[in-house]
Amino acid sequence: MLGKLTGFDDTIVAVATAPGIGAIAVIRLSGQQAFPICNSLFPAKNLDLQASHTLHFGNIVHNGKIIDEVVISLYKGPRSYTGEDVIEISCHGSPYIQQQIIAATVDKGARLAKPGEFTQRAFLNGKLDLTQAESVADLIASNSAASHQTAMQQMRGGFSKELHALREQLITFSALIELELDFSQEDVEFADRTRLYALVSNATTIIQHLIDSFRMGNVIKNGVNTAIVGKPNAGKSTLLNTLLNENRAIVSDIAGTTRDTIEEILNIDGILFRLIDTAGIRDSSDTIETIGVQKTMEKIREAGVVVYLFDVNELSAADIQQQIHGFETDNVNFLLVGNKTDVAGEEAARAKFDGLPILFISARNHDHIQELKDKLVQKVMAGDINTEDTIITNARHHAALQEVQQSLQDVKNGMDNGLPGDLLALDIRRSLHYLGEITGEVTNEDRLDYIFSKFCIGK
Amino acid sequence: MLGKLTGFDDTIVAVATAPGIGAIAVIRLSGQQAFPICNSLFPAKNLDLQASHTLHFGNIVHNGKIIDEVVISLYKGPRSYTGEDVIEISCHGSPYIQQQIIAATVDKGARLAKPGEFTQRAFLNGKLDLTQAESVADLIASNSAASHQTAMQQMRGGFSKELHALREQLITFSALIELELDFSQEDVEFADRTRLYALVSNATTIIQHLIDSFRMGNVIKNGVNTAIVGKPNAGKSTLLNTLLNENRAIVSDIAGTTRDTIEEILNIDGILFRLIDTAGIRDSSDTIETIGVQKTMEKIREAGVVVYLFDVNELSAADIQQQIHGFETDNVNFLLVGNKTDVAGEEAARAKFDGLPILFISARNHDHIQELKDKLVQKVMAGDINTEDTIITNARHHAALQEVQQSLQDVKNGMDNGLPGDLLALDIRRSLHYLGEITGEVTNEDRLDYIFSKFCIGK
Repeated sequence: MLGKLTGFDDTIVAVATAPGIGAIAVIRLSGQQAFPICNSLFPAKNLDLQASHTLHFGNIVHNGKIIDEVVISLYKGPRSYTGEDVIEISCHGSPYIQQQIIAATVDKGARLAKPGEFTQRAFLNGKLDLTQAESVADLIASNSAASHQTAMQQMRGGFSKELHALREQLITFSALIELELDFSQEDVEFADRTRLYALVSNATTIIQHLIDSFRMGNVIKNGVNTAIVGKPNAGKSTLLNTLLNENRAIVSDIAGTTRDTIEEILNIDGILFRLIDTAGIRDSSDTIETIGVQKTMEKIREAGVVVYLFDVNELSAADIQQQIHGFETDNVNFLLVGNKTDVAGEEAARAKFDGLPILFISARNHDHIQELKDKLVQKVMAGDINTEDTIITNARHHAALQEVQQSLQDVKNGMDNGLPGDLLALDIRRSLHYLGEITGEVTNEDRLDYIFSKFCIGK
Repeated sequence: MLGKLTGFDDTIVAVATAPGIGAIAVIRLSGQQAFPICNSLFPAKNLDLQASHTLHFGNIVHNGKIIDEVVISLYKGPRSYTGEDVIEISCHGSPYIQQQIIAATVDKGARLAKPGEFTQRAFLNGKLDLTQAESVADLIASNSAASHQTAMQQMRGGFSKELHALREQLITFSALIELELDFSQEDVEFADRTRLYALVSNATTIIQHLIDSFRMGNVIKNGVNTAIVGKPNAGKSTLLNTLLNENRAIVSDIAGTTRDTIEEILNIDGILFRLIDTAGIRDSSDTIETIGVQKTMEKIREAGVVVYLFDVNELSAADIQQQIHGFETDNVNFLLVGNKTDVAGEEAARAKFDGLPILFISARNHDHIQELKDKLVQKVMAGDINTEDTIITNARHHAALQEVQQSLQDVKNGMDNGLPGDLLALDIRRSLHYLGEITGEVTNEDRLDYIFSKFCIGK
């Protein structure tokens, strides 16, 4: 624990609730001076004499003026979020009053908290490990069932537990190797190489699983950029509207109507698809439209999945084969969707494009839209979404796990090449170091400041 | 008290903090089922066994899924805001989590609260009178020192106390009159007419004072619409920028540049002046600009105060006299400001407009801007702002006080004309009725619903 690195002589204060006007707002103080500061502003009672986890009604009075009638929540350290003495002041939700109370506490010696500083203190005081602390920010930002559940699982220590188990295995391995080194003069081999090899192999399998989960984790946390592209009049805006059941995009029969990209979010099975409506793909002499087409090409490159929509009555099987070739060349994750089956009939369309991996729909008649949604989920998720499994959602964890994996790979290679134990031990220590970075057992203050700076104020 | 009018069998729930993402959010429940509902979602403890005014950490679990780790605040009725059993759930500030918790409580039998419904219950349960309840909404909306202080004074019962004293006086009067009526056969006059007359006169003086305070109260609560008008190139945009110390309006030398009205708020001594920048006043053949000028004339009619700005180098004393005449005819509250004294010098300007009530400034050089601010405050405030006095800020109170005053005037007129005691008593009762409407001693459910519907949700 890094508690010793920082003094925490100061007491921090911030509004903990969302900005703006609400019925109530909560102002949070943490630190050694939280009680004295509030006592000096709260004449109703001596807070020092009150039990932890109790509520107290009274006025906040500063410079002889009543700022507000409030309720004060007391948490005596270490039984608090940060592990320090914490006071929460629940006041009327006027931004003016919030300001005045914050100013009064600062006048009495508090300091404005930096983003995430309460959670940073909780981590430094050993109330949470680093992955749990980071999950608090994810939890607050969660906006779907899937992102909420993965963040909650992480906050409750699921990921930490998995890492802990791995760490135990690697420490066992390391201990055996180092035992050998102690007796290196005697040229014994305590560590059974076959068993060691199995141990490392098992660890790399688990870590690869975690690394692989990041793709899903990223989808869960950030959603998927989804570009719907196709020639003008393929029915892109109609499809967008059908998907969203609302009329945000302008639907028109005039080719090239949709000039701006319009972003909409579609929640399918708890995954957020950020739908991007784009200008038609074609050569165009119209300048404004050309910008639109350029934007479309950019969007295709950025998209997690591209829905290529076409009019089954207009394009040929050869056109589609060419399109497939183009997407494959550019390594695009695509879904072919043949629209307007309502005109010539679905059977005719199937016959025309026989053997091609196309989903046939009618955006106008809402035919097979559910299948389209299901296909979208399949396109971005490797398998079923099982948020009970540990899923990596954090780029920092992903990067560190890749380092762990690299180190373990080096161990394996080393064993294959008969490297001496002391060199193997170095690689093992390296993997332990990166594992420790994830949970915060190994870290430094700058990195911590960076991690917590991405939190919101008051948390 | 109206508590008997409503059953309150239902338990209401709402998010009490501002909408959006914050570190934490607070969800509030009030009603007989608040404890059972939360108990069914909070496995950590039996809340029924916990003391009032205590805090409890644990999970909210619904349908076997953990929604969040929360802190629950317990308030057992009548020691709560509403007077009922109240529970506040402090959760992570994700809108998704807030939704899920609200949905879980609704699933367990809570009902979504209407705006102001918590405070309405507090009123109906006798925790607050109606003026105090109304001041809660004002307090939450307060955005300046003055509006905060008047709302706080009212919430603490300052206005109610004053009304109570008046009511006592009028009840004394009424009692004396009615005593006479009981003995009317004997033609005695218990009530000394001179003393009664003095009593009513005193009451009307107090009420007139309160009625008059509404102008100030309105200014404090809503701010003052302030139009800065004048011919093109008088320097309106420069003045606006100088007042705001920022560059929102486009400053340009081209006549008629400012076509849209730009609103800015200036806080002077705790009073909010809503500054309206307007197109120049002149006949114009430019259509767009004509709309601007029309808007300007509207703004002048709506404005609480009009700053007429002119270039001292361009206009004559006769022009200004004509302008003054126009404002006086239209009953406009105006302030004449002569700008650009930096060109020919302030002394020359004073000589040119000798005897006219003009404040000379240079917007460009920031000369006499503080005087301009002081004058603005004087223009809208009858006297000093003394927020220790009771100030009426509520249009409903103002209307009811006018009715009280009318009734008292009728009493006085009746006494002047030797009206019999029973008729005087009717008028006195009428005044007591309207006084009672203000504090809520006399009211009806529809009116209450209307009053509280203007509150925010969760209060």
